[in-house]
Amino acid sequence: MSQPQLLGAIEAGGTKFLCALADTDGTILDEIRVPTTTPEETLTASSDFFLQATARHGPLATLSIGSFGPLSLNQTAADYGAIVSTPKPGWSGADLLGHFRRTLGVPMALDTDVNCAGVGELLFGSGRGLDTFCYVTVGTGIGVGLVIGGVPHGGANHPEAGHIRLPRAAGDEDFAGICPYHGDCLEGMASGPAMRARWGMPGELLEPNHAAWRIEADYLAALCANLTYIVRPDRIILGGGVMQNDAMYDHVRAALRSKLAGYDATVSAIDLDGYVVRPTAGASAGLTGALAIAFRLLKRRWPTHWTVGSAPAAALAENVSHG
Amino acid sequence: MSQPQLLGAIEAGGTKFLCALADTDGTILDEIRVPTTTPEETLTASSDFFLQATARHGPLATLSIGSFGPLSLNQTAADYGAIVSTPKPGWSGADLLGHFRRTLGVPMALDTDVNCAGVGELLFGSGRGLDTFCYVTVGTGIGVGLVIGGVPHGGANHPEAGHIRLPRAAGDEDFAGICPYHGDCLEGMASGPAMRARWGMPGELLEPNHAAWRIEADYLAALCANLTYIVRPDRIILGGGVMQNDAMYDHVRAALRSKLAGYDATVSAIDLDGYVVRPTAGASAGLTGALAIAFRLLKRRWPTHWTVGSAPAAALAENVSHG
Repeated sequence: MSQPQLLGAIEAGGTKFLCALADTDGTILDEIRVPTTTPEETLTASSDFFLQATARHGPLATLSIGSFGPLSLNQTAADYGAIVSTPKPGWSGADLLGHFRRTLGVPMALDTDVNCAGVGELLFGSGRGLDTFCYVTVGTGIGVGLVIGGVPHGGANHPEAGHIRLPRAAGDEDFAGICPYHGDCLEGMASGPAMRARWGMPGELLEPNHAAWRIEADYLAALCANLTYIVRPDRIILGGGVMQNDAMYDHVRAALRSKLAGYDATVSAIDLDGYVVRPTAGASAGLTGALAIAFRLLKRRWPTHWTVGSAPAAALAENVSHG
Repeated sequence: MSQPQLLGAIEAGGTKFLCALADTDGTILDEIRVPTTTPEETLTASSDFFLQATARHGPLATLSIGSFGPLSLNQTAADYGAIVSTPKPGWSGADLLGHFRRTLGVPMALDTDVNCAGVGELLFGSGRGLDTFCYVTVGTGIGVGLVIGGVPHGGANHPEAGHIRLPRAAGDEDFAGICPYHGDCLEGMASGPAMRARWGMPGELLEPNHAAWRIEADYLAALCANLTYIVRPDRIILGGGVMQNDAMYDHVRAALRSKLAGYDATVSAIDLDGYVVRPTAGASAGLTGALAIAFRLLKRRWPTHWTVGSAPAAALAENVSHG
């Protein structure tokens, strides 16, 4: 009897869980979009999907989850595999790995949503061929995934780089910031909701030359400067709703050049046009990355034979985002 | 004929080059302290030491250098192996690896002084048994070495985390900072020379309860918070001249607790007494770490059989620091 060869992946977000079953060539066999309601409802609907899909297509080999957090990823912790202390009502303590261990019982991987999207970019997007890079998403929150030495970085638990402290941008001295814990950390000053609170309207309604964008670019450039000095990545991939304003890329690069200020010839030599870039792995990079992690859990290598055209990203971005 | 088995290491600093020849058990066979004058004088005296010492003790297998920087560590760069754009007169462009390749011609490793000290702490100090930690030295400059996954972190070149941007500490709004590039980056606000410029006297002359220490602790705690959120280390080792004021450890921990502000249950659960700690690998941790890297270059593993008592750190700290 042959070993199970099908891969399961979940992109667990605050509004929806995207679940997909794929074969080891990266072809999606089945997928579903489950609304994020209560942990019991959402997790049960997700595991039911895999039970039904595997009944049709064959047994599951591995499951990989990319989730919102903060998560407990220390395997020795009592709450390993759970979402911890999220502001999302009902979800603090939700035991993701525990639920799927009980219902599906296959080898599992859990990482942050941004690390999974980082893996999607590593294999199919702007991180291709790189050793070390940062994937930043600026939207409802600010998340940072790190790929270091070709693999997603964990550390003692997982980074939460959206919550670093930065100097105030010039002209932004009075806004208190909206992070319920830190007030004026990066996320408190520069997330989408922070822009809305600061200016009384969402970013997409602000004029392209509104001062808000200069201030926003200053915070994101300060993040990029600190990531440069601490991680020394090959590239920083900046995405998320706020970066839909295309002019922001040049604003961030200009502010970053000013902040780096010519220090360290090797840093000064960086071509910022190729350093601060858009994500290109598609809207489902997180789910694609999670599938790739499921593959790696089974085969102990990345699925480098998945090509962009046949990669799940393209299909899922179409099928799921309009679903 | 047997292969060469002797290890060479250099701790290249702004005032002195410490050079040591050791066997694979970590026993120092010969050592020298060379003043840092011009690159030609200092590098020649250092290579002459190895030529003479190996004539007495046997051939050199590998050489490892831990150096002040910034360095060019990208092997594809035209200036790979050189010190780049340092404020130290005469040393910008000094080709460290080129000099020792020409004079000694053995396999070589080059990394930052702080990464080598981090390796010293990993094997013989406060980083023992850890997977991921930060080694911070606060003195003439502020340097940060990173050990990630049990090895020193490089990235596209090497981190320069002393130059990150942080919010001003309360009560420190007027000081411009002394970094010639960034003004008020971390090093510009919180290095030893910054304290001297800010208060008109060196830190060691300031009363233990002077407001300067609260401000200094605020900056170092902000560094620790950002390192925590970006790298998620198992520990942060804080050393250097400024940390000779022993009360600073509790000041930094208290300020760090305040900055973390209860966000993320896994971060809040960290015991800060065991998280922000002193270095314990001795005054020559950098040279010891460089020797360990020379060993690893030869044997493809860390010299875990070097024990603290017989490790070069102890001997060198005595012999060299009084030399």
